[in-house]
Amino acid sequence: MTHYDLLIIGAGPAGYTASVYASRYQINHAIVGELPGGLVGEAHKICNWPGEKEITGFDLFMKMHDHVADYDVKMFNTKVNEIKKEDDKFILSLASDEELSAKVILLVTGTKHRHLGIEAENRLKGKGLSYCTTCDAGFYKNKITAVAGGGNSAMTAALYLGEVADKVYLFVRGTELKGEVAWMKAIEANPKIEKVFGVEVKDILGEESVSGVQLSDGQEIKVDGLFVEIGSSPDNVLGEQLALEKDEYGYLSVNKDQSTNVVGVYAAGDLTNESNNMRQIVTAAAEGAIAAESIFKFLKR
Amino acid sequence: MTHYDLLIIGAGPAGYTASVYASRYQINHAIVGELPGGLVGEAHKICNWPGEKEITGFDLFMKMHDHVADYDVKMFNTKVNEIKKEDDKFILSLASDEELSAKVILLVTGTKHRHLGIEAENRLKGKGLSYCTTCDAGFYKNKITAVAGGGNSAMTAALYLGEVADKVYLFVRGTELKGEVAWMKAIEANPKIEKVFGVEVKDILGEESVSGVQLSDGQEIKVDGLFVEIGSSPDNVLGEQLALEKDEYGYLSVNKDQSTNVVGVYAAGDLTNESNNMRQIVTAAAEGAIAAESIFKFLKR
Repeated sequence: MTHYDLLIIGAGPAGYTASVYASRYQINHAIVGELPGGLVGEAHKICNWPGEKEITGFDLFMKMHDHVADYDVKMFNTKVNEIKKEDDKFILSLASDEELSAKVILLVTGTKHRHLGIEAENRLKGKGLSYCTTCDAGFYKNKITAVAGGGNSAMTAALYLGEVADKVYLFVRGTELKGEVAWMKAIEANPKIEKVFGVEVKDILGEESVSGVQLSDGQEIKVDGLFVEIGSSPDNVLGEQLALEKDEYGYLSVNKDQSTNVVGVYAAGDLTNESNNMRQIVTAAAEGAIAAESIFKFLKR
Repeated sequence: MTHYDLLIIGAGPAGYTASVYASRYQINHAIVGELPGGLVGEAHKICNWPGEKEITGFDLFMKMHDHVADYDVKMFNTKVNEIKKEDDKFILSLASDEELSAKVILLVTGTKHRHLGIEAENRLKGKGLSYCTTCDAGFYKNKITAVAGGGNSAMTAALYLGEVADKVYLFVRGTELKGEVAWMKAIEANPKIEKVFGVEVKDILGEESVSGVQLSDGQEIKVDGLFVEIGSSPDNVLGEQLALEKDEYGYLSVNKDQSTNVVGVYAAGDLTNESNNMRQIVTAAAEGAIAAESIFKFLKR
């Protein structure tokens, strides 16, 4: 079983930034991440990472990845099935059947896409139903598509689909869009996008693949693809195993130094309720840096 | 008098990131900054900005500057002499004799170099005494130099001088260097750098220009140049005028949303005691983003 001073679990901006700082502090560490880049890698267009007017999630992820790799950090691209504390160390069982141990754990598993919570979702996922516009928009050239959601993710998804598809419905539960005004204006200016307010997707129609949606107001609309962008929820499976304290929404409660209620366990990024719950790439990165410094001090004691 | 919804005072990473977010939120705003780029612009080598293996402070500043300028944000490159609250707005008197007003103020004036506090400092500043290695190291080719300080700034200053000068003394008050282990190892590996522990610079010798230093242990050492890198202190002149709450070290105490005790005044970056007092570029940037979102919500109310 390979032992590290620090294992970073998660490979998004928080984990990568923590790794860069940990490398600078010369902390013996590795990264275990099922999805390198995290959800950032899926972003079609990022306009608010300081210093980059416009960059794809993939390109930003690659820049951060190369930065981490420049310090020869070992990366396990797999999932952690189980984590447990034994005496003064943590034992991780990976999906790859390996076991690792570490003095300190940094949890940066971020969030996962929130689902609609209807039966049809399981049946039609990957068959016209998607949670990732960047991944799947390309399949909908000249087709009719829809996005469920009314925030920044939903707006950017609709704008991206507008570049490919013939038509994009935007099904918004509330009475207005919420998020950056820049996206709202772009939505207004796009004749392919039709907003429908005050509705939820009640059912997804189609057997082998998506053929339409049924809305909460009763109307049925024919679509070839549905993209669900109704927010995200914390990916806290490992936090539960470690009995970490969380808030009412399931996000981890951490101290100012990113430590949790379990000695030796730190958390950073979208998984926590820090940074005023803003959950941006730059706030996740900052929390990763703060965690790395705290861990350096912890290990030196 | 030109009126803005938001005036950002300070032009470092916190202010620039806040501006990018404010532009995305379409907040009518401008930046007033005496020193564009802030102290970051002086950094010789930055290795911990996520995604950039190595970049000069100037280059990183220019990338952020271009990002801000891409949204046509008005920048006043001057100092704010005075700020006062009148009814529901703030009036700023600039050193350029202009007056500006704003509904909301974001203070991001950061820190300034801490001085030794000795009489010779005033006499010899710019005459062999410097607070900015990046600015002045070039003058010391094949000369004897010294750095006062023992943290990351002092270490990077010594390493930079080691590339130019024949000899670099590092005068450290404590018994060890403090900061990134990567810098410590580089210092150890550099034969030009001589560390002297347990000493302070008591006096700087020379009439027209620096000729040496007198240390607290009595010894006099001949040097052609002295670089003072003993940390920084908050640049809080405007915070004092607005009676903002601060901690015992003079850093502003802000709420989770970066608001201060004065309604309509927000603060972010190195000037505050947020981000676990880490004061990194990435933490300043994150605080700027959080402040912009809070200000957007405040203005919408």
